Amino acid sequence: MTNTQITLVQLDNYGPWTVTPNPRREVDLQTLQSRLYADLSQLFGTRDGYVFFTRFDNMVAVTNGVDAEDHARIQESIRNRYPVTVSLSTATAPSPADALAHATARLQEEGSAQDEDRTEALLGAPLEDDERTDDDLQIAHFDVNDATGEYTDELDAFSTFIHIEQAYASLMRHMHEEHDSLSFFVGGDNIIAICPAMDAAAYRDAIDAVRDDTGVDLKVGVARGATAHDAGMGAKHALEVCREEGTVVEFE
Amino acid sequence: MTNTQITLVQLDNYGPWTVTPNPRREVDLQTLQSRLYADLSQLFGTRDGYVFFTRFDNMVAVTNGVDAEDHARIQESIRNRYPVTVSLSTATAPSPADALAHATARLQEEGSAQDEDRTEALLGAPLEDDERTDDDLQIAHFDVNDATGEYTDELDAFSTFIHIEQAYASLMRHMHEEHDSLSFFVGGDNIIAICPAMDAAAYRDAIDAVRDDTGVDLKVGVARGATAHDAGMGAKHALEVCREEGTVVEFE
Amino acid sequence: MTNTQITLVQLDNYGPWTVTPNPRREVDLQTLQSRLYADLSQLFGTRDGYVFFTRFDNMVAVTNGVDAEDHARIQESIRNRYPVTVSLSTATAPSPADALAHATARLQEEGSAQDEDRTEALLGAPLEDDERTDDDLQIAHFDVNDATGEYTDELDAFSTFIHIEQAYASLMRHMHEEHDSLSFFVGGDNIIAICPAMDAAAYRDAIDAVRDDTGVDLKVGVARGATAHDAGMGAKHALEVCREEGTVVEFE
Amino acid sequence: MTNTQITLVQLDNYGPWTVTPNPRREVDLQTLQSRLYADLSQLFGTRDGYVFFTRFDNMVAVTNGVDAEDHARIQESIRNRYPVTVSLSTATAPSPADALAHATARLQEEGSAQDEDRTEALLGAPLEDDERTDDDLQIAHFDVNDATGEYTDELDAFSTFIHIEQAYASLMRHMHEEHDSLSFFVGGDNIIAICPAMDAAAYRDAIDAVRDDTGVDLKVGVARGATAHDAGMGAKHALEVCREEGTVVEFE
Ligand SMILES: Nc1nc2c(ncn2[C@@H]2O[C@H](COP(=O)(O)OP(=O)(O)OP(=O)(O)O)[C@@H](O)[C@H]2O)c(=O)[nH]1
Ligand SMILES: Nc1nc2c(ncn2[C@@H]2O[C@H](COP(=O)(O)OP(=O)(O)OP(=O)(O)O)[C@@H](O)[C@H]2O)c(=O)[nH]1
Ligand SMILES: Nc1nc2c(ncn2[C@@H]2O[C@H](COP(=O)(O)OP(=O)(O)OP(=O)(O)O)[C@@H](O)[C@H]2O)c(=O)[nH]1
Ligand SMILES: Nc1nc2c(ncn2[C@@H]2O[C@H](COP(=O)(O)OP(=O)(O)OP(=O)(O)O)[C@@H](O)[C@H]2O)c(=O)[nH]1
Ligand SMILES: [Ca+2]
Ligand SMILES: [Ca+2]
Ligand SMILES: [Ca+2]
Ligand SMILES: [Ca+2]
Repeated sequence: MTNTQITLVQLDNYGPWTVTPNPRREVDLQTLQSRLYADLSQLFGTRDGYVFFTRFDNMVAVTNGVDAEDHARIQESIRNRYPVTVSLSTATAPSPADALAHATARLQEEGSAQDEDRTEALLGAPLEDDERTDDDLQIAHFDVNDATGEYTDELDAFSTFIHIEQAYASLMRHMHEEHDSLSFFVGGDNIIAICPAMDAAAYRDAIDAVRDDTGVDLKVGVARGATAHDAGMGAKHALEVCREEGTVVEFE
Repeated sequence: MTNTQITLVQLDNYGPWTVTPNPRREVDLQTLQSRLYADLSQLFGTRDGYVFFTRFDNMVAVTNGVDAEDHARIQESIRNRYPVTVSLSTATAPSPADALAHATARLQEEGSAQDEDRTEALLGAPLEDDERTDDDLQIAHFDVNDATGEYTDELDAFSTFIHIEQAYASLMRHMHEEHDSLSFFVGGDNIIAICPAMDAAAYRDAIDAVRDDTGVDLKVGVARGATAHDAGMGAKHALEVCREEGTVVEFE
Repeated sequence: MTNTQITLVQLDNYGPWTVTPNPRREVDLQTLQSRLYADLSQLFGTRDGYVFFTRFDNMVAVTNGVDAEDHARIQESIRNRYPVTVSLSTATAPSPADALAHATARLQEEGSAQDEDRTEALLGAPLEDDERTDDDLQIAHFDVNDATGEYTDELDAFSTFIHIEQAYASLMRHMHEEHDSLSFFVGGDNIIAICPAMDAAAYRDAIDAVRDDTGVDLKVGVARGATAHDAGMGAKHALEVCREEGTVVEFE
Repeated sequence: MTNTQITLVQLDNYGPWTVTPNPRREVDLQTLQSRLYADLSQLFGTRDGYVFFTRFDNMVAVTNGVDAEDHARIQESIRNRYPVTVSLSTATAPSPADALAHATARLQEEGSAQDEDRTEALLGAPLEDDERTDDDLQIAHFDVNDATGEYTDELDAFSTFIHIEQAYASLMRHMHEEHDSLSFFVGGDNIIAICPAMDAAAYRDAIDAVRDDTGVDLKVGVARGATAHDAGMGAKHALEVCREEGTVVEFE
């Protein structure tokens, strides 16, 4: 069984800020959002967590091993360096989807994402060290087969993007509905999924479903670990085995 | 008629780099990619261009008003500050999709995205000043109606994300197939589309198609301009009119 | 004769911000300051200007070729992405020191650096294009001879730093008092000086004065240009000639 | 007694890189250096360490509490995101100056700062947890009295800078020669000194020496702690007491 700790990162009252007193330059918003994401990636990452940009105003972090004090400090560090603040809500569950659902519900109880009085909420109780085990997380790293030869070097860049994007839309839905997993596009042709305990057959099904749905061929490396980094790096190594062996699903 | 100048930004031989000599930490890749995007956003943005992150290893920029020398300098600035380099390929056409297709084809002729000898290609001829007009670009800024009340404050964060993502997948395909437009998710519940000359009825159709397909309700502000910033800021102001008047399509 | 356009960049009411409501973490302040400087460096730099970090809360930019609209946009871009704002005051004079003195005086008239009501001042009139010439700026790039062999590889890192620092303190004073120049440490063993028209003998005197005062041996490359980048890059090339020829002062 | 752990951060073979194949744009170097510093500040800072920019190509970090694995990861993170790499050398001693001297000597033994074969050295043994105590570090935060009223609002910006700079040059020398301390300018009118156990009288002497030498009036807050952040934040609070009480030296 897995025990996934998820932190929802929500920008406080960000929608109104983007248009007050007038709409702000889009390039500045893009820069702000992507740098904030990069910083969160480093802040959680130095503690072996992962963050996914998702919608940029709502990001999802996998935070096994990141404690309450760390969360407080990350929140403070953003406040000290950005014109916006973030709320953080943490929850843990065997199912990644449940963990995020609990974290979201807890934050919603405090008020709306666009409530100007609800700023810097800091909610939920991260796992204690003695509640943690070496295989609390299962991470799957999906990748398109020969994306370069099939798409990037062949189609125009937007058509390539549409294929990747539709494959992602298909996979994210399948993995969420069938397996309570949270799947995130991480650039290029790569998708990282936070999973409960799933076996090789289940991954093979997911890959088949995406092929049937969109025609895109995926492979996947899977691993367990105590932290997002441990499981995620294991998954990358397993994916390299897929590349070497020409296989479609590999567990570390 | 529009005359859209598009620049394809492609990281050189990036796939192999991410796994040489061993797979690199995902958080470092995420940080690298999002900061590179933020920098390109500023570099093109100070010249009134827009950049979209797309797949992060292949980005699309709208560059009317950015000349050849500017492109060379942007390429140099990245080389001076990152462990990776970028190729830039520029083309212009009345149809945004055609412009990107030409830019892609031109780059593909130089070699593969994973050809280690094809680095820092700098291709295509930006528009001369006397070829440019004040309405070369048409930009549409789409936004989900009351995303906060309908989704963010109601559903769990991943279910919200799925709705937004499916709406985006639906819109990007419709706008590409029907209108040769390039649509990009820019965070939150916002999608920016680079369009040829389209009228209000065509936007209404697109909004209807997305609602039928996914159940998500959009509104859109549209404007013309000489640069991405001019057209894009006009579109934002038009979108504010939608908000004030409760309308669904507004032209600046 | 030179005609140096200087912009003073001052953080608004920054001192109180650093300790409100409590002293902020030093590492966050350091990150904020150095990133703000990096961004200004890019924002002015893409317009061929130079910025020097000086005290970080007060920075000095050389802005020939950067017009009023550019200044406004740079100010806006900082506001959109940082928790602090900046005031900008621009002045031009044959003497760099005079230009900065005028720019400072103009800003001081608007109120104190710690007046909470004086935010985002935007003062002074940049040069019109027809007032500019190809040799408005003279820039000197000073460098310590064999800093690696003499200091870095020989002394402990702080003793090395003391030598470089004392050489800088000596040079900055000499160049200011004798030549109305503004000299800035730019890292390593490098100092960039913004000068009025000075000849080789004057630079030789400066180098002698620093050697007498501190025992540190400098060389210098000098060039003229229409912008900071043009003059500064010329100075770097001249410095390379010093390296190749073993000379002490070179003009481009 | 204190027990200061210092890490010397040295860019590998950076001098040649800056001019290969041609001198690189100064604004890109400035951006690279200040962002690298900002990242190191965050990477060490999230582990309660401090980094000082010093010469930018050689930086000094106070790293009590940062272990060997952390150092390795910081080195890797820079390699993954920058075109340059860093060497790290760590040493511990009761005297901060000795610690840095040992760290430097150890790195010099491996080869020159401009030896292209000496990259990513990772040297020295950080303190084990059981060797650490709650007052291993003593940090002093110096600040100019009423810098705004005396200088910033009164003199031109360069003259102000000269005063601050000369005060810093005087203090750094005095503290190094008399007390084996390492003092760093951190922006504005602030200097942070890493000290051995020193008493109030010694700080009063330092302040008197700087006043005699340069006419600049300082005050100082001092504190002990297990990490740079603990001691440094204590020093800031002590400095606030100076402000409230009008005193010149305060210990936390
Ligand atoms: N986020 C992330 N992206 C990666 C990683 N590895 C590769 N990519 C991205 O994936 C793109 C395609 O690279 P590859 O998957 O190596 O290339 P391919 O042509 O599909 O070849 P195969 O996957 O080996 O069949 C790259 O441009 C990167 O953007 C990774 O570890 N993390
Ligand atoms: N990139 C970008 N994102 C924006 C912009 N304006 C808003 N957003 C994003 O959209 C999210 C939702 O904000 P709104 O669209 O204002 O909120 P809403 O609840 O949907 O309300 P209405 O659109 O007014 O019906 C915000 O959190 C932002 O992430 C913009 O101009 N650019
Ligand atoms: N800002 C900046 N710093 C530079 C530049 N070139 C070199 N440096 C810095 O100067 C340091 C020393 O490099 P060099 O001056 O090449 O080395 P050196 O040992 O003094 O050798 P010579 O100057 O050739 O005698 C480097 O580590 C850099 O920090 C430059 O163009 N700009
Ligand atoms: N790095 C750093 N800089 C600071 C800090 N506090 C203030 N500063 C800098 O110091 C400058 C001057 O601020 P203050 O010292 O508050 O102002 P002052 O006029 O000297 O007033 P007093 O010190 O209260 O007499 C600010 O602009 C900042 O640049 C701090 O905690 N860290
Ligand atoms: Ca692939
Ligand atoms: Ca909306
Ligand atoms: Ca040198
Ligand atoms: Ca002060």
